Amino acid sequence: MNARVFVGEQQVDAWPIGNRLESYGDGLFETMRVHRGEVPWWGSHWHRLANGASRLGITLPGEALVRQAAASMFEGAGDGVLKLLVGRGGVGRGYAPTSAAAPLTMLSRHALPGAVESVSAHWCRTRWSIQPALAGLKHCNRLEQVLARGECEEAGTDEGLMLDTDGNVVSATAANVFVLRHGRWWTPSVARCGVAGVCRIHLIGLLQAAETDLSPAQVEGAEAVFLCNAVRGILPIARLEARAWSVHPAIAQARRLLADQHPGFLADATSMDCVTPTPQ
Amino acid sequence: MNARVFVGEQQVDAWPIGNRLESYGDGLFETMRVHRGEVPWWGSHWHRLANGASRLGITLPGEALVRQAAASMFEGAGDGVLKLLVGRGGVGRGYAPTSAAAPLTMLSRHALPGAVESVSAHWCRTRWSIQPALAGLKHCNRLEQVLARGECEEAGTDEGLMLDTDGNVVSATAANVFVLRHGRWWTPSVARCGVAGVCRIHLIGLLQAAETDLSPAQVEGAEAVFLCNAVRGILPIARLEARAWSVHPAIAQARRLLADQHPGFLADATSMDCVTPTPQ
Repeated sequence: MNARVFVGEQQVDAWPIGNRLESYGDGLFETMRVHRGEVPWWGSHWHRLANGASRLGITLPGEALVRQAAASMFEGAGDGVLKLLVGRGGVGRGYAPTSAAAPLTMLSRHALPGAVESVSAHWCRTRWSIQPALAGLKHCNRLEQVLARGECEEAGTDEGLMLDTDGNVVSATAANVFVLRHGRWWTPSVARCGVAGVCRIHLIGLLQAAETDLSPAQVEGAEAVFLCNAVRGILPIARLEARAWSVHPAIAQARRLLADQHPGFLADATSMDCVTPTPQ
Repeated sequence: MNARVFVGEQQVDAWPIGNRLESYGDGLFETMRVHRGEVPWWGSHWHRLANGASRLGITLPGEALVRQAAASMFEGAGDGVLKLLVGRGGVGRGYAPTSAAAPLTMLSRHALPGAVESVSAHWCRTRWSIQPALAGLKHCNRLEQVLARGECEEAGTDEGLMLDTDGNVVSATAANVFVLRHGRWWTPSVARCGVAGVCRIHLIGLLQAAETDLSPAQVEGAEAVFLCNAVRGILPIARLEARAWSVHPAIAQARRLLADQHPGFLADATSMDCVTPTPQ
C-alpha cells in the first residue's frame, strides 16, 4: 500500500504496538477523491475531521503537514483516492484518553473505483445503534458497517441499506442515501447515528434537499433513490430487493449539479447524460 | 511495552499499515490476570474470544500458539496482566470483511494495578448505545468507553457508571456492576449492550446472582454495590455521587468465594477480611 505514517510531525515506518487505534478504534478518518493532484473538497473534509477531533478530544496534526504529504503522494497530478486516518496518541492499557501524546497520522493512496451507471441494494439485518455522542462522525468504530457490508457480499448486491435500531432508514454501509418523493429530495438526519457525508452536505445545498425520517416502505415507494459519497459521487439505485427503478431525469440533473462543484465527477455526469437523455 | 505480535503464525515486528484494527476496530481482546505464570481463567477468556470471533466471522489464531507465547512472556512464574488482541486480517480500503487473510495477534504484558479497598464512582453522561449484534463482546469499538473514562478523569472519580440510551444501568467503563438488594445480588443483562465479563459470569454462579434491569435510583438505594473485572476482582463502591457505603459483609464474603476460584484474588480477599470482620 502506498502510505505515509507519522507520529506527531515525525514520519515513521510503523506506529507503536499497542496504540489506541488498534486497541479501541480511537480515531477518525476521511476518504477523499483526488482530481489531477488536487482534493477539490479538502476544506469540507478537514472541517468534518476538525469537528470530530474536537468532539472526541483528539489532537490533530497540523493541516499544512498533512496537505504537503498528500500533495507529494499525488505528484504528477494523478487521480485517485486519498485516505487520511488520525488516531489519538499514547499506548498501553486502559480507556483513559491521553491528550498530551502526539497524534498518529496515516495517508494512503488508492485507485479510483470503476465508474458504474447504477447499483443494486438490499436491506441489511445489521442496524445502526443510536448514539448521539458519536453520530455524524467518521470515526474508526466501524464494526456495524463491517457486519453490514459482509451481508452485501453474501447477498451479491452492490450495497446495503441500513436502518437504525428504531427502524428508521439511515444510510448505506459506505454512502448516504437520498430519495425523491413528490418531486423533492429527502435524506435522513445524522443526529442520532450515521455519518455526515461530505458529498451529502454538498448535495443538500445543491438539491435543496431536506432531512426527514424515512421508513423502508417510503424508500421503496420513492420516485428515485441514489447513494452518494465523496469518492463515487452519485450512485443511482436500480434495484432494491424486488423494487426496480430506471434512472430518473432528476438524478441525471443532480449529477450535473455535482459535477459543477467537483470536477472529478464530470465524467460520470457526462456518461449518464448519454444513457438517460433529460427532458427539455 | 513488552509485547509479541503475529500475522497468522508468523511473529513480526509490526502489523502492516492499513490493517483493519487501525481502520475499523475490527477485532476482539481479552485482559487476563496472570498468577504465578498461569492464567487461572484461561478457559473462560478463550471461550468468550471464540464466541466473539464466531459472531464477527473473525478467524482466530491457534490456541496452542497463543498459550505458548503467553507462557514465554511469564517465564519465572510472575504475576501481572496479559492482554490478548486479535484482529481480522487484510489491509486496504473498504468495510468488506476478508475471511481468508491471516489474523493479527498481539500479546502484551503489563503490571498489576495496585490493590485498593474500595472505589469512588459517578454517573457518566456518555451512554452505551443499544446494539444486540455486538452486545456482550469484548470488541475493539470502544469510543463510548474512552469518552466515559475521560469523564472520570475530569470528575476525579476512580470509575464511572454508564447507562444505556434507554436509561438502564449497564456497567462501569471497565467493569461490570453487582448490587445487593433485599439480600440478593443482581447484575444488568448484557444482551443489548455491555461486555459479558469473565469475572461477572463466575460471580453470577458463585453468588447465585440474577440479571435484572436497574435504574440509577435502584443502584443508589442498594444495600451494597461492587464493580468487578478479571484483573481486579471485586471492587466495592464506597461512594457514588452523594451516596456513601461502608463495605458490606456480603462483599467480603463474595471476595472470599472469588478467591477460592482464582488464587490471584486471595490477597485482596484476605486484606478485606482484616478491615471488615464478617459476622459468624
